[in-house]
Amino acid sequence: MTDTPRPVVLLTDFGIADDFAGVCHGVILQRAPGTQVIHLTHGIAPQAVLQGALVLRGTLRYMPTAVTMAVVDPGVGTERRAIAIDAKDGRSFVGPDNGLLIPAVEEAGGVARCVSLESPDHRLEPVAPTFHGRDVFAPAAAHLAAGGAISDLGPALDPDSLTPIEIPVPRPAGDSLIGQVWSVDRFGNASLNLGRAEISEVLGDASRAELVVGKRRYYAALAETFANVRPGELLLYVDPYGFASVAVNRGSASDMFDISPGDEIAICPLVEA
Amino acid sequence: MTDTPRPVVLLTDFGIADDFAGVCHGVILQRAPGTQVIHLTHGIAPQAVLQGALVLRGTLRYMPTAVTMAVVDPGVGTERRAIAIDAKDGRSFVGPDNGLLIPAVEEAGGVARCVSLESPDHRLEPVAPTFHGRDVFAPAAAHLAAGGAISDLGPALDPDSLTPIEIPVPRPAGDSLIGQVWSVDRFGNASLNLGRAEISEVLGDASRAELVVGKRRYYAALAETFANVRPGELLLYVDPYGFASVAVNRGSASDMFDISPGDEIAICPLVEA
Amino acid sequence: MTDTPRPVVLLTDFGIADDFAGVCHGVILQRAPGTQVIHLTHGIAPQAVLQGALVLRGTLRYMPTAVTMAVVDPGVGTERRAIAIDAKDGRSFVGPDNGLLIPAVEEAGGVARCVSLESPDHRLEPVAPTFHGRDVFAPAAAHLAAGGAISDLGPALDPDSLTPIEIPVPRPAGDSLIGQVWSVDRFGNASLNLGRAEISEVLGDASRAELVVGKRRYYAALAETFANVRPGELLLYVDPYGFASVAVNRGSASDMFDISPGDEIAICPLVEA
Repeated sequence: MTDTPRPVVLLTDFGIADDFAGVCHGVILQRAPGTQVIHLTHGIAPQAVLQGALVLRGTLRYMPTAVTMAVVDPGVGTERRAIAIDAKDGRSFVGPDNGLLIPAVEEAGGVARCVSLESPDHRLEPVAPTFHGRDVFAPAAAHLAAGGAISDLGPALDPDSLTPIEIPVPRPAGDSLIGQVWSVDRFGNASLNLGRAEISEVLGDASRAELVVGKRRYYAALAETFANVRPGELLLYVDPYGFASVAVNRGSASDMFDISPGDEIAICPLVEA
Repeated sequence: MTDTPRPVVLLTDFGIADDFAGVCHGVILQRAPGTQVIHLTHGIAPQAVLQGALVLRGTLRYMPTAVTMAVVDPGVGTERRAIAIDAKDGRSFVGPDNGLLIPAVEEAGGVARCVSLESPDHRLEPVAPTFHGRDVFAPAAAHLAAGGAISDLGPALDPDSLTPIEIPVPRPAGDSLIGQVWSVDRFGNASLNLGRAEISEVLGDASRAELVVGKRRYYAALAETFANVRPGELLLYVDPYGFASVAVNRGSASDMFDISPGDEIAICPLVEA
Repeated sequence: MTDTPRPVVLLTDFGIADDFAGVCHGVILQRAPGTQVIHLTHGIAPQAVLQGALVLRGTLRYMPTAVTMAVVDPGVGTERRAIAIDAKDGRSFVGPDNGLLIPAVEEAGGVARCVSLESPDHRLEPVAPTFHGRDVFAPAAAHLAAGGAISDLGPALDPDSLTPIEIPVPRPAGDSLIGQVWSVDRFGNASLNLGRAEISEVLGDASRAELVVGKRRYYAALAETFANVRPGELLLYVDPYGFASVAVNRGSASDMFDISPGDEIAICPLVEA
């Protein structure tokens, strides 16, 4: 056991209207007094494993060397395994074996050690079949935060046995690139599964893009930040995590488009008349 | 005064759109530096004292030995007393004398000492008549967290004088049991005032239940967890706090039923045809 | 560097549906381990600089001596400066130079020292043009929290060069006073830019007020707290920050009035018939 516990970072789809996140916080402080908890987000869309995995990966470099507990878990209470992973860079991860943790663990250098959470000493028995966050993941995170060994938590797993996750890639169609909305934030800004390089490739030297959403067409200025365009104007920019995003300065792109995660947007250069 | 403050657990109906919860956090750190604060929930429905009391009781065993400050307080600023309670198990409680704290205090072994919060040294004067959380409860919680004596906070109260709370019980009607919805969570799962034993009693060996909501009838599978039924299917399960709950796998029971806390649901066995 | 970091108080318009606030928390703990973070509020309306400035000023006296990081920043990524201020009372402030910090800094005794956040050692490079909270303000707040000198963060600024903010004042119209709604809280209570003195002046000895909202007229009782009027009844009271507010006991004034921040309400005495 170390003197000062590592912080615990929580990412879930619990929302904050209920007590779920607070209860996990309580379990962690009960079993590892003094632990600092960062509520990274509880706003992952319900059961949106892919969104959770991408947020976890994208934010990892901004977190201290911590224990990350992530819960987006449509299979809670079924045969899917509960796992803990020590990554090669010294970070640890706790969550369901459904792919949620994998992109972040790869960002953290890959798996050093990996176990199945089966030790009754580090679970709250009887485990509720619908709340492993409280009864399985929080006690495991507390144990790791307090400096306990990962091997105490259960039998070792072969890293190759971990459930993978498929991250959708954009696909070309004529002179367009078709991307997928993977998140919409509180300001209505919609991030796509496209990076800066892909935007440059499809748009070339054009300073404006045509966006096709369903049967509707929109024109967006390429810009670095919101205030580079007029209020109410649409822009295409690279978001703080490196993803192409569409926004309306002082407005909401998601309201204008009526789009949700999973929807497709085609992007092509707009040739100025 | 002890060296390390006890944590403070906050439960309120303040929501988190405003600064109310953050201001209470500030007052606690101002008066008891270093205190760890657990925001258990600020999502209790406005003025829903019964819901707050049940959440407080149900989550208590998952919290560290702490000072709980709970504020769901329709009578703020009136003659209702503000109180602090040391429970027999070493936990302390601060809140309005409207029954909110009582079920949790009973869970914590009952009242050891109890006072009325009247000492001007442990209030922010002048006390705002509509925000006792900031001006009365947070300073008292900070004092107790830092190891101060409960007797500093005001005159002792007779525990028998505390305002009780009535917890509604289910009632039988023919071969049905009529329960009351006491909460609906972010996923649309609705918890009832029925435990596992009562469900077993009314349903016997049946593996499916009929639910009557108003004039509509629904059929729900008895299941341990969401993924035990098909997506879109209704299930009746025991929630993580031991209450019977209705849910839709990958959907929302509250959307399907249009139910709110206080509504009644009749449950009876479904005889397979 | 001091032994124990000062707490950091966060006020933003980030909301809590996304990871923005959690990421800032992570950056602070990465660079200043052990710092306690108070999430004062992330519920400022998007880009509502005036509302943010008033909340920051009104809540300051309830916060410990801390580093306040405030971000309501419509001009993010443009030429507007990013600044840090040491106030004369020992508090520090970090945020955009758009007037947001000014009323709170005045409350804290005024500017002792002020710098422009330009040092690459205390920014996350490359700085994302749309997320200075993460890349500029959080690293600066962490540096100050850990006891670092404000002069490390960039070149000194003339306090007279800081961007001011205009706070709207009520205006008389006949025997009425016309106030402006500056916030609506979760309970639907609407606070106006009027203090207790101004209410006394316009209402005199009257115990009821007439409120004019657009073309509609309402009658409100003057009261100290909600429960002083009947359920469903409208009241005019002084809110916990000293502002005149309109509320409905056990209801929502904003639902009754359909009002939003910026709307005007005329108040005059109601002469009892």
